Amino acid sequence: MLIHLTGTKHWPSHRPQTLRHPTSVSAARISCISSYKSLLASSPALPHRSAVVVSINTHSIMTVPAFTAPAPGLLSATARPTLSLSPSSSAFRGAPLARVSPRLPAHVAPRAQVRATAVSQVAVDDLVELLVPESQRPAKHTEAEGLPSVAVSDIDMQWIHVLSEGWASPLRGFMREQEYLQCLHFNSLRQPDGSVANMSVPIALAINDEQKKELDGKNAFALKSPEGKVVAILRNFEIYEHNKEERCARTFGLTDERHPYAEIIYNSGDYLVGGDLEVLEPIKYGDGLDEFRLSPRQLREEYKNRNADAVFVFQLRNPIHNGHALLMTSCREELISRGFKNPILLVHQIGGKVKGDDIPLEVRIAQNKRVLAEGVLDPKSTLLGIFPSPMLYAGPTEVQWHAKARMNAGCQYYIVGRDPAGMKHPNGERDMFDPWHGKSVLSMAPGLEKLEILPFRVAAYDKTTSKMSFFDPSRLDDFEFISGTKMRKFAAAGDTPPDGFMAPTAWKVLVDYYASKK
Amino acid sequence: MLIHLTGTKHWPSHRPQTLRHPTSVSAARISCISSYKSLLASSPALPHRSAVVVSINTHSIMTVPAFTAPAPGLLSATARPTLSLSPSSSAFRGAPLARVSPRLPAHVAPRAQVRATAVSQVAVDDLVELLVPESQRPAKHTEAEGLPSVAVSDIDMQWIHVLSEGWASPLRGFMREQEYLQCLHFNSLRQPDGSVANMSVPIALAINDEQKKELDGKNAFALKSPEGKVVAILRNFEIYEHNKEERCARTFGLTDERHPYAEIIYNSGDYLVGGDLEVLEPIKYGDGLDEFRLSPRQLREEYKNRNADAVFVFQLRNPIHNGHALLMTSCREELISRGFKNPILLVHQIGGKVKGDDIPLEVRIAQNKRVLAEGVLDPKSTLLGIFPSPMLYAGPTEVQWHAKARMNAGCQYYIVGRDPAGMKHPNGERDMFDPWHGKSVLSMAPGLEKLEILPFRVAAYDKTTSKMSFFDPSRLDDFEFISGTKMRKFAAAGDTPPDGFMAPTAWKVLVDYYASKK
Repeated sequence: MLIHLTGTKHWPSHRPQTLRHPTSVSAARISCISSYKSLLASSPALPHRSAVVVSINTHSIMTVPAFTAPAPGLLSATARPTLSLSPSSSAFRGAPLARVSPRLPAHVAPRAQVRATAVSQVAVDDLVELLVPESQRPAKHTEAEGLPSVAVSDIDMQWIHVLSEGWASPLRGFMREQEYLQCLHFNSLRQPDGSVANMSVPIALAINDEQKKELDGKNAFALKSPEGKVVAILRNFEIYEHNKEERCARTFGLTDERHPYAEIIYNSGDYLVGGDLEVLEPIKYGDGLDEFRLSPRQLREEYKNRNADAVFVFQLRNPIHNGHALLMTSCREELISRGFKNPILLVHQIGGKVKGDDIPLEVRIAQNKRVLAEGVLDPKSTLLGIFPSPMLYAGPTEVQWHAKARMNAGCQYYIVGRDPAGMKHPNGERDMFDPWHGKSVLSMAPGLEKLEILPFRVAAYDKTTSKMSFFDPSRLDDFEFISGTKMRKFAAAGDTPPDGFMAPTAWKVLVDYYASKK
Repeated sequence: MLIHLTGTKHWPSHRPQTLRHPTSVSAARISCISSYKSLLASSPALPHRSAVVVSINTHSIMTVPAFTAPAPGLLSATARPTLSLSPSSSAFRGAPLARVSPRLPAHVAPRAQVRATAVSQVAVDDLVELLVPESQRPAKHTEAEGLPSVAVSDIDMQWIHVLSEGWASPLRGFMREQEYLQCLHFNSLRQPDGSVANMSVPIALAINDEQKKELDGKNAFALKSPEGKVVAILRNFEIYEHNKEERCARTFGLTDERHPYAEIIYNSGDYLVGGDLEVLEPIKYGDGLDEFRLSPRQLREEYKNRNADAVFVFQLRNPIHNGHALLMTSCREELISRGFKNPILLVHQIGGKVKGDDIPLEVRIAQNKRVLAEGVLDPKSTLLGIFPSPMLYAGPTEVQWHAKARMNAGCQYYIVGRDPAGMKHPNGERDMFDPWHGKSVLSMAPGLEKLEILPFRVAAYDKTTSKMSFFDPSRLDDFEFISGTKMRKFAAAGDTPPDGFMAPTAWKVLVDYYASKK
């Protein structure tokens, strides 16, 4: 029996967001809600910004509206909520009955109060790896030579990489039409066992009319890399129409052809082909960074080797400044305060195609390595890795993909920030997405109930202490916000940033990169 | 224990579509799948176009890939599938164990074979009606006079009507942001009891900057009809940004401002406001058609009065020709063949705003009445009604709304056809949607598991018999397809359609309408 308090937004005005994965625990829920309602009624000054998560076991987790951040001593003994879990619900059959008082500490911190949960309780989906076992590869290569073939793009290769290692489990290959439709309309796939797997971005292979004609009536075909090497076989495939406008609309919330990934879609073939993928060799890049490209299975092994009892992940496509580091360190401290002994941080750089003005992967990795070398992040509890997916710039739709793939890689905690996977609207007038929709959508997404979302706290440069600190709105004038754009301008000009903004040798990596571009 | 065979598409290439609402019945599922796999292996010529639905009870329904339409005699005794339901799955605890042979008849019809299911097994969601009880109305009116007010549009009034009667249950008013986001991204709302309610189209109230300023900081405001009458109060409201492009993209799959409902959105205010709605009077139109506007509650009562043991619904925004009637009659026969004694058909016309070239409601109702009066549809087992929603022309997204609202109105069976809620793309070049996506998406939609989708069969004019018949592709040349466009052209020209196409007095209604437009 676990009690979590996690932050949510806008209670009591919304109901659905506060519920993550409740199953038939309505008797308990009603009891909780009434407890908390009376609490709120008796303490109207409480900010309504939190939720209680009651995990009975991994199959029945529920969240009820609650409260957060009462001033010390504000919780009277009578108002303290008591959760009565009634055995009348069938979900409780077999589960131990319990009567739980959350025992809120006298000084409830402004952030969520939580107690430890065991890693083993947070199951991850079974990995579906699509790499052909070594012993079968020669035969498959021979077979592939006799099949029709399709030459794929660099981005298709990145998706083949993603699929081969199981980041997109339970997908067994490029999406067939029914998977594609569920993805576009529901951001999730109904599984044979009745569960729902999150799947928010189409992983679809486009072919043109000519290729379609060659494939019509066939059962399997070979996929060739842009260099002409056979990399995979797609079997039992299905060809369907590629409505590019509709795909962009439902994925990005716009149809503008200047959007970087929409442009790729509009330039691709008029058909999609989905089927069972067999990848013939591990995908390697030979760019000196392959050591950072650990597969979900390798990552899970690495956590085990490091004796991790919790894994939290920070997805990024940027250099790390000290504000990011502060956030990651503080998340680690929180996990330790919950009772974990050895939480491991996965710093996970997007490895696939990014838009032109994003910093290249090799520069980001070099910069990140310096951050670890300088001890800004603890190298012992930090793992630097590369996530092979391309960026889609699909905001709330894509952040689900980012989180889901990491869940497949054994992560239990996901840090989400402002405007994840967002960008400026291609019309240049505004941001594409509301900056907080990503976090909201992620917290409500079907199939991600087992992943805990860790809230992103805004860090800014505190001029009074000359370091990055969590922003304190009561001291607005003491802070300076250094945006990515401002940072890039500094680095491009070869300027030194304010003291304490970034590890100096890490900063040098950026300055050198911009100098090399001139 | 029930066995259904329902048609699906593309098996064995897809997995998810064949599963509608399975819960923890994997042992049985695996057994079914292997049975059917051996069947398919032994009879490779079988068309792979069907699925078996096994309903153990309303809480555990599963569907496994199967077969359809084998030629008579093709099923050998050894290949006949046997479903062994194993008690090892916890879902079976308490359920009777069974060993079932589907006993497929020697002449398996091309359409699905089904056996009866009890109406009581198909529960409907609880209705959330938002009409203030009569006794409280004077006080609420008095209160409303002291509140700030917002004048709403005709379409907003139609949504108030929809909300007031519970068509959109469990919504308690115009959507707040968290509901809006779940609707746009997942087409469904997570409920407090852990269930998922389908909700695919945003029901959102737009306000402009000026109205927002007036409402900021308030707790409630009055909604006034376009005629200036107070019709409702919205409480505990939340104002959020109205990203029109994103809303259109995710609802319609396009952002084109010429789309009829997109145009309405683009012309509305820059903010949305959601909250708890209290409607002060039943919404009436005084157009002579109010008697057809039965609310979900009234419809449920009407089914009871008529001793219905099954209710199936046909949603339309068109006149009824004999092909439609044939389909409806045949659905009724199918339900009777399943063991129902008195299936009731709800012929349900869209009552809200439609696009300019659709036929007006009063003409459609007048035409439909003639179809009943002429006995083309049996008046005793048919109920003619009006669904107060406006049309969105959102295809696969909207068909879920059409089905979900009817589920709230007590219907258990929904007839879905080609390109539901579709239209020509505003660019005039093609249809907006793939004609079969609506049916596919509907059959996979979260929250609609309790509604059974009845497949639409294409009817065409059979020149050999001078009547509408189900299209038989082996006699292609005997059939003439009469599209809506062709029908309108005939009627507009005052021509008489081919014998047997439509009841003559019903046809006259259309001819008179087009004549009156000239």
